[in-house]
Amino acid sequence: MADDARHPHRWGYADTRLELDGPRSVRMTGSRYLLSGQQMPHLIPFVEQMLGVPFNPGARIPETLPEIPAGRLDAARLAIFEQLAPADRRSTDPLVRLAHSHGQTSVREIDRAVYGGGLPRVVDFVIEPVSEEEVRAIVAAAVAHDVCVVPYGGGTNVSGALLCPGDEVRPVVSMDMRRMKRVLSIDRANGCALVEAGISGGELEAALGAVGCTSGHVPDSLEFSTLGGWISTNASGMKKNRYGNIEDIVLEATLVTPSGTIETYQRHARTSTGMQPLSLLFGSEGNLGVITKALIAIHPKPEVCRYGSLVFRSFADGVACLRALRAERVLPASIRLVNNREFRFGQALKPAAHGMKAVKAQLQRTLLTRAYGFDLSTMAACTIVMEGTKREVDEQERALRRIAKRFRAVWGGAENGRRGYTLTFAIGYIRDFMSEYGLIGESFETSVPWERIEEMCAAVERALAAECAARGVIGMPYLSYRVTQTYHAGACVYFTMGFSGHGLANPRADFEDIEHMLRQVVLDHGGSLSHHHGVGKIRQAFLPQVHSAAGLELIRAAKRAVDPSNVFGIGNGACGR
Amino acid sequence: MADDARHPHRWGYADTRLELDGPRSVRMTGSRYLLSGQQMPHLIPFVEQMLGVPFNPGARIPETLPEIPAGRLDAARLAIFEQLAPADRRSTDPLVRLAHSHGQTSVREIDRAVYGGGLPRVVDFVIEPVSEEEVRAIVAAAVAHDVCVVPYGGGTNVSGALLCPGDEVRPVVSMDMRRMKRVLSIDRANGCALVEAGISGGELEAALGAVGCTSGHVPDSLEFSTLGGWISTNASGMKKNRYGNIEDIVLEATLVTPSGTIETYQRHARTSTGMQPLSLLFGSEGNLGVITKALIAIHPKPEVCRYGSLVFRSFADGVACLRALRAERVLPASIRLVNNREFRFGQALKPAAHGMKAVKAQLQRTLLTRAYGFDLSTMAACTIVMEGTKREVDEQERALRRIAKRFRAVWGGAENGRRGYTLTFAIGYIRDFMSEYGLIGESFETSVPWERIEEMCAAVERALAAECAARGVIGMPYLSYRVTQTYHAGACVYFTMGFSGHGLANPRADFEDIEHMLRQVVLDHGGSLSHHHGVGKIRQAFLPQVHSAAGLELIRAAKRAVDPSNVFGIGNGACGR
Repeated sequence: MADDARHPHRWGYADTRLELDGPRSVRMTGSRYLLSGQQMPHLIPFVEQMLGVPFNPGARIPETLPEIPAGRLDAARLAIFEQLAPADRRSTDPLVRLAHSHGQTSVREIDRAVYGGGLPRVVDFVIEPVSEEEVRAIVAAAVAHDVCVVPYGGGTNVSGALLCPGDEVRPVVSMDMRRMKRVLSIDRANGCALVEAGISGGELEAALGAVGCTSGHVPDSLEFSTLGGWISTNASGMKKNRYGNIEDIVLEATLVTPSGTIETYQRHARTSTGMQPLSLLFGSEGNLGVITKALIAIHPKPEVCRYGSLVFRSFADGVACLRALRAERVLPASIRLVNNREFRFGQALKPAAHGMKAVKAQLQRTLLTRAYGFDLSTMAACTIVMEGTKREVDEQERALRRIAKRFRAVWGGAENGRRGYTLTFAIGYIRDFMSEYGLIGESFETSVPWERIEEMCAAVERALAAECAARGVIGMPYLSYRVTQTYHAGACVYFTMGFSGHGLANPRADFEDIEHMLRQVVLDHGGSLSHHHGVGKIRQAFLPQVHSAAGLELIRAAKRAVDPSNVFGIGNGACGR
Repeated sequence: MADDARHPHRWGYADTRLELDGPRSVRMTGSRYLLSGQQMPHLIPFVEQMLGVPFNPGARIPETLPEIPAGRLDAARLAIFEQLAPADRRSTDPLVRLAHSHGQTSVREIDRAVYGGGLPRVVDFVIEPVSEEEVRAIVAAAVAHDVCVVPYGGGTNVSGALLCPGDEVRPVVSMDMRRMKRVLSIDRANGCALVEAGISGGELEAALGAVGCTSGHVPDSLEFSTLGGWISTNASGMKKNRYGNIEDIVLEATLVTPSGTIETYQRHARTSTGMQPLSLLFGSEGNLGVITKALIAIHPKPEVCRYGSLVFRSFADGVACLRALRAERVLPASIRLVNNREFRFGQALKPAAHGMKAVKAQLQRTLLTRAYGFDLSTMAACTIVMEGTKREVDEQERALRRIAKRFRAVWGGAENGRRGYTLTFAIGYIRDFMSEYGLIGESFETSVPWERIEEMCAAVERALAAECAARGVIGMPYLSYRVTQTYHAGACVYFTMGFSGHGLANPRADFEDIEHMLRQVVLDHGGSLSHHHGVGKIRQAFLPQVHSAAGLELIRAAKRAVDPSNVFGIGNGACGR
């Protein structure tokens, strides 16, 4: 097993997982992360307190491989597709096929792949092209032989976009793009690089880092998600204040479709050359074709990267402060605000503190509650990343502290900031651990006008509690939220939701119903259908609430134009069946 | 005549024009502008020096109304369209029809409308809807009765986008949107406003200004161009560093098409909800339908708006400085760099200086040349607008001056900065004056990677000189340029070009050939087809150099989907015949 081998279904690297190292203590295996190798004695007590149910270490659900149907590629077509790549770059192995048939939604995908139940449709063949020419040949073969093609990037999608329609009768070929990860050229002088679309965030940053550069795109899935995937879902990165979201970062991209290759030859910072085919690639979710490469903005690595944190008396104070920072254009590369419960979740992940560390932590707490009068059950916290020249960062920190004071915030130091960002990369592993013990959860996000943030969060909280009670959920549900991005006209709010599935006849169905219902609550309170996760399958039903019928028809017409026989039949968003 | 009446064909207000007030002296009429009422004794000598030909005050070309063909709307259809608006909001008057049949390209449109020659096709009927319902009714009638509809905004287009195809056999109705100028709602809390698309920049700023706000969108055509026009051409404003270009400002827009109304019900700062119909509205150039309203970002008026200017030893120094400012993220709302010739053009517009003013100007010149060692024939200048809180502007000016020093720049003061921006609004009038005396000119723009700016400018200069010589142009051509916008990966360069048409058998044809040839030179040296003027008709032939065939076909398919019978038959960009 290679060092960087991933678990075929669950989140992340195969060498990293959470496991019990005592009846009420958890440990993260491996050595990749801040938490790796550390004992976390507070997590299970926190979970018990939040859910109001005892954690049962004996309730671990064993993994059960679902039945995988035989591949549907008949001998004649199999022979054709086998000629398109050497044996080490293609597979009909059931496990490889299963791994390519889902993304990372917890209940609808991972749970069904790992704990039985199975997926509606498993791809029949996996192929890994290494060049745009091979991609074109695969697409041409698919067109000629009535085969469906599904582009596959990092496999981290969380909108069901990688789920093949259950009624797809044609053979389905998964085109795994991860070998197409070359940086084709770097133009430091003009601040851009041409990069193959299968590159992951980790690989991209390593390659650019070798020449002192960065793309600045840091989605939570950075380690695994790919450039092509970012464009397809219209991704957002935590440092977008400095580097932009994916639509700001990508100057041009190449899309191979059944009707030919869509690309722009003249690549510029900004143009006015009529309607732009490129604009439809953002959010295309695999419906139009395969993205093979993109020209992206790159930046010299900043001279200084400094973390910071702020503690607020309440979430409302924090929101008001973020709003003021936006209005006064004091915009650190990243600034994220967690509500009280999410703050306490972060605390629950702290390792056992001994000696001076324990004393220091106790002192910090005492200072906050006694000297500043904070209430530990209502306070909220903000983590900050500032980047730039030392002068720029100094000025930014000064301005930030000045404005934060108006909102009664206390500066929480760099270490708490750094820790907040590092924990981001542990969330997927924690979810998988919980799910092993029947505690099911998911995150979902939205963008919402500033004025409606608190109203919307409260409505989601109420609706979740009511629905769980009505369905007989034991204990109570967990809901925490954070503001991860801010904009002039609003912000992105990211929810984490979960409850105990124990005692429910069909916890998966309950979970999916509740999630769907909460999405409607979000829409009803001014939230968008998604800020950066996309529509895929799980939000398809809401599209008529977002776009007019003529708008949706325009999208479908664009789809038909480039792919008249629906070779790219993944059926996401407006292109669903 | 209303105070704000415009000239039906030429640029701008009817009360404002340049005229000779002596054989070698020019005056601007009216009282709207900085230059209004002032004698400009330096302009004609400057023109003579630049073009190497004497200015002949007797060579004024008289206006000649072209022959306007009778309207093609037959009685039956005329009756139908007359029912769609009361008499004061529709017209078949030949002069009104002519005025609605062109934009503002100097030779291809204004020259032909004002000095004879005529336009390839004149619209047959002009109608002015006041509501989205009326717009829908007009579009429905056009669909039902085989009529072509052309949306008309401010009439300031400079890419031939308002020229009807000469072979359009259907009656053509011009839908003049300028009565749809209401601000429907203002949401100060979330920083946005819903505005009808026919509003001009001047009207928009007046309406927002009344509640202490601004859109921050300031194209050179601000006084006349409309919100709908900005979206259709993918416009850029001079303050885009602070407020964004039109695609950043517009959160949502409504488009009425023959297949229904395209709009997004949920309006947010940023979303990931699949492919976006809205994205195709930018640069749609009237091909898809009529834009009726848009949700735009608005901002509180800045506490401080401060002008500034810098003088550089050379254009190259200036470019290097702009680049450094971009890299270090010191970004005034606007910063523009003019080359030496454009700087001197600005000087030539100065009124006659007397007394202390003359002494001061002489002192400034002496200081620059003697104390700082500037060469007046190579120096370049930068005009700056800084906006924000006083603290923000102070910090920005400090950083700006610090960085500029590295490029041997001298601070030129606020007054020169303010003057530079004010002159922008006079350019159209000056063009029309020159053209009255047979001196033909035009501006054209592009975006180009940083590294290629100087190479491209030099190539355009060489090609223009060679071509004019080959065609027997008397004297020499004028070419000046400025950098008007900067981006991470490049900048917008704006050229002004002109020469004497005297002695040429067909100066219009020569001009169009030369302009076309220069566009190819721009493309060959890394420039884009357009930064913000659009494609329209005059850049259509170059599109295959910009987009792949499949990309262009995708655009055409989108067009066919919303407008299968080509009601919006204006034929711009990729939708040309």
